[in-house]
Amino acid sequence: MTLDQLLERPTEWIASEGPHGKIVLSSRVRLARNLRGHPFPEWANRTRRQKVLDIVMPAVAELPAMKEHFAATMDSLSALDKQLLVERHLISRVLSARNHGSGVVINKEETISVMINEEDHLRMQAVRAGLQLQKVFRMIDKVDSELEEQLDYAFSPRFGYLTACPTNVGTGMRASAMLHLPGLVLSNQMGQVIQAVNKLGMAVRGLHGEGTEAQGNLFQISNQVTLGEKESELLERLDKVVLQIVEHEENARLTLLEKEPNRVYDQIGRAYGVLRYAHHLDSKEALNLLSLLRMGVDLELIPASGRAMVDELMMLSQPAHVKRAAGRNLGARERDVWRAELIRGRLRELAAPALDKQPAPPQSEEEAA
Amino acid sequence: MTLDQLLERPTEWIASEGPHGKIVLSSRVRLARNLRGHPFPEWANRTRRQKVLDIVMPAVAELPAMKEHFAATMDSLSALDKQLLVERHLISRVLSARNHGSGVVINKEETISVMINEEDHLRMQAVRAGLQLQKVFRMIDKVDSELEEQLDYAFSPRFGYLTACPTNVGTGMRASAMLHLPGLVLSNQMGQVIQAVNKLGMAVRGLHGEGTEAQGNLFQISNQVTLGEKESELLERLDKVVLQIVEHEENARLTLLEKEPNRVYDQIGRAYGVLRYAHHLDSKEALNLLSLLRMGVDLELIPASGRAMVDELMMLSQPAHVKRAAGRNLGARERDVWRAELIRGRLRELAAPALDKQPAPPQSEEEAA
Repeated sequence: MTLDQLLERPTEWIASEGPHGKIVLSSRVRLARNLRGHPFPEWANRTRRQKVLDIVMPAVAELPAMKEHFAATMDSLSALDKQLLVERHLISRVLSARNHGSGVVINKEETISVMINEEDHLRMQAVRAGLQLQKVFRMIDKVDSELEEQLDYAFSPRFGYLTACPTNVGTGMRASAMLHLPGLVLSNQMGQVIQAVNKLGMAVRGLHGEGTEAQGNLFQISNQVTLGEKESELLERLDKVVLQIVEHEENARLTLLEKEPNRVYDQIGRAYGVLRYAHHLDSKEALNLLSLLRMGVDLELIPASGRAMVDELMMLSQPAHVKRAAGRNLGARERDVWRAELIRGRLRELAAPALDKQPAPPQSEEEAA
Repeated sequence: MTLDQLLERPTEWIASEGPHGKIVLSSRVRLARNLRGHPFPEWANRTRRQKVLDIVMPAVAELPAMKEHFAATMDSLSALDKQLLVERHLISRVLSARNHGSGVVINKEETISVMINEEDHLRMQAVRAGLQLQKVFRMIDKVDSELEEQLDYAFSPRFGYLTACPTNVGTGMRASAMLHLPGLVLSNQMGQVIQAVNKLGMAVRGLHGEGTEAQGNLFQISNQVTLGEKESELLERLDKVVLQIVEHEENARLTLLEKEPNRVYDQIGRAYGVLRYAHHLDSKEALNLLSLLRMGVDLELIPASGRAMVDELMMLSQPAHVKRAAGRNLGARERDVWRAELIRGRLRELAAPALDKQPAPPQSEEEAA
């Protein structure tokens, strides 16, 4: 299928709501694999990278999970195409900087993507809505097993799968969950949470992974260790940590609503008001305001139909998606005008009468008892 | 009449729209007068101030223009009452700091108010909507002439009316117009305008006169000179200057709309969105956003019914007015919550569908021809 056909379909993990979907947007597992007897991409010349691509790409494209797919070599994609795939988390920024000898294969639901000659010969990922790490792992594990029947992986009985970067050696697995944590941010608790999570051997990162800033109150929690533990154990530990953060976030929101209800209503009301009527929105402001709107849905200040709308707008208001919607190249200011119009148009369908009211006065402890 | 009765009536210059009412909110003329043979208030002891008050107050109260009036000595008013009168521009901050021996008489339309023992024995003002300085002068001139029949004014054939501060000697007149200049502010032209106006011997001040900051893009333009020119000449000069500023403001708005239409729509849209949905607004932010909304009415982005609403909200969202509406003493945060609720409630009746649309693309010169 073409890139246009792929992008016109709703992304599975955005259109559906998974377990703990209020706070956990998605779960993702990726495996790093390499072919025996071929140099890692960074050390391979163009001919040798092309050779790996020629072996791997057809093998991936023929997998049952990839029955309908989009496949492309990186040199065949425009800068805009690449940026679109990055914004949809279907390829990494590292792959988007590659050209000859690298490629990607993505299934039509956008739940499985296999990058070829990124940092490793193969980087395969599965993603689903909500917190379901084990299920996502089984999806990608199946892809991996089927590929292993055809490809000769670099594997050491002692270390496990060999990878270009030693931090991936062993399982070659990085599992992550994308969390929406406005309550912890608003109550200034994210610093503590990050420290605690780091101590448990997990990393907290921004929207686009390593080295990116947290925007829209979105955080990726992922495992650091790939060696010395079984996949199932790693996933179980990550799952527990995520569940704890979810609980913290829920508590933070309840406390905010109880102690500073007007502040919560104010933040969500202003976000709604600005998104509904602004004529100029940059992508960072849009994402931050959409994040507050999403919390508004969770707190029932915005109708439930708003959640899918907000999640879609979070994706569609990214720069490359706005350019694509405009159908032509736009300067930054023009893009901000288009983005604002897109969001205004959608939000017109989303009335928020609950935001007119004052928050109910908090019950006293006596009344609550 | 009681203060409550006075405040419950709409203020004439807010409820009606005068000449050039889009940009000129009100015209005001005040005269300073003193009684011969009595020391100026600052130099008078309590007994002597009381004596002046006892002479002047009944004389003012019995004027035909004051048929129905509110009259009070300053010591009989609470701090909140005084602040309410200041916010309505019916007394000055100087008078509000006075107690024994000072007072005020205000007619029921709030178009005439006479302060007794402020800086001078009498400070009488008239105010009307829009630009109509001559008419306002005739109103207060009539009051002055009628009072002069009963009171013995300190007058020098050489200098004119004598006043406590030499800057008022002569006519004792200060005429001013309150202008709404968001276009000049948004296009960074206010500095130039202030310089030019100063060169013409006029002063530019903020919302509450001398020494106050410009908020809500509101500026008072007034004469500096009181000596050596007839009242009619002074008023004519001020009128001309104001008309020039009005023209500059109109041009600034047109230029903004032509060159940066999205910026204009964005500013007005955001102002509407925040006022419509915020749950926490301090008085400064409220005034600044209401100012943008008022410009939105002028530019027909907000329905015409919005102008009176905005002008009323500009008054009602001031701190003492919010306290009064709440019927009890409020802390600053509580006041901000009340203010936001008041404004949300009103704006619910003011739909702004024009803000949904994109500004029309500017006509090219050919098309316009």
